[in-house]
Amino acid sequence: MSNVYDSANELEKAIQESDEFKDLKAAYDKVMEDPNSKQMFDNFRNTQLELQQKQMQGEEITEEEVEKAKQVVELVQQHEDISKLMEQEQRVNVLINDISRIITKPLEELYGAQQQ
Amino acid sequence: MSNVYDSANELEKAIQESDEFKDLKAAYDKVMEDPNSKQMFDNFRNTQLELQQKQMQGEEITEEEVEKAKQVVELVQQHEDISKLMEQEQRVNVLINDISRIITKPLEELYGAQQQ
Repeated sequence: MSNVYDSANELEKAIQESDEFKDLKAAYDKVMEDPNSKQMFDNFRNTQLELQQKQMQGEEITEEEVEKAKQVVELVQQHEDISKLMEQEQRVNVLINDISRIITKPLEELYGAQQQ
Repeated sequence: MSNVYDSANELEKAIQESDEFKDLKAAYDKVMEDPNSKQMFDNFRNTQLELQQKQMQGEEITEEEVEKAKQVVELVQQHEDISKLMEQEQRVNVLINDISRIITKPLEELYGAQQQ
């Protein structure tokens, strides 16, 4: 019978203490410690954010930009620390998606059950 | 030191037992019990889903469709039970958004703190 906000804070703490999050933090810190890898990662992220923004605003993405983005991805994947960080991000994403599926179950059941 | 999945299930239960969710369920059941209001609500939802899908697929939405959607919204807002249901949906949305802000805090702090 716990309060929703208490439970959410509890869950936040559990996420923070999870292996998934701790490993992500370690991988992130490692990349950020090295100016070289930090620069590569920042560049990669900025390229991705730019493309996402363009997509959301319905702007056209040129072939050149797609090509550039591909190259940046290939480059960072070859960097051991960054590719490890990306793997950890993927693991945390899975965790967050699982959580979001669990907590939206009541709504899905309500809107699923009575709808035909 | 609780497990993430245990905490998520705990939170799911707390949502299900919250006033916000119980009130939503009551409002939803009331609308579904009456064939007339059920039909109106289903029609409203289908119109919204269609437009959302078109938007996501980048299809153009005609002025006629916008007009039709507006009319459907105006119609359902005049229906007391349906407008109550929409209010309750809004309340639950606020709750879910709050929760999602709380549980993504660790990620935001990680990616926010070390980035300049």
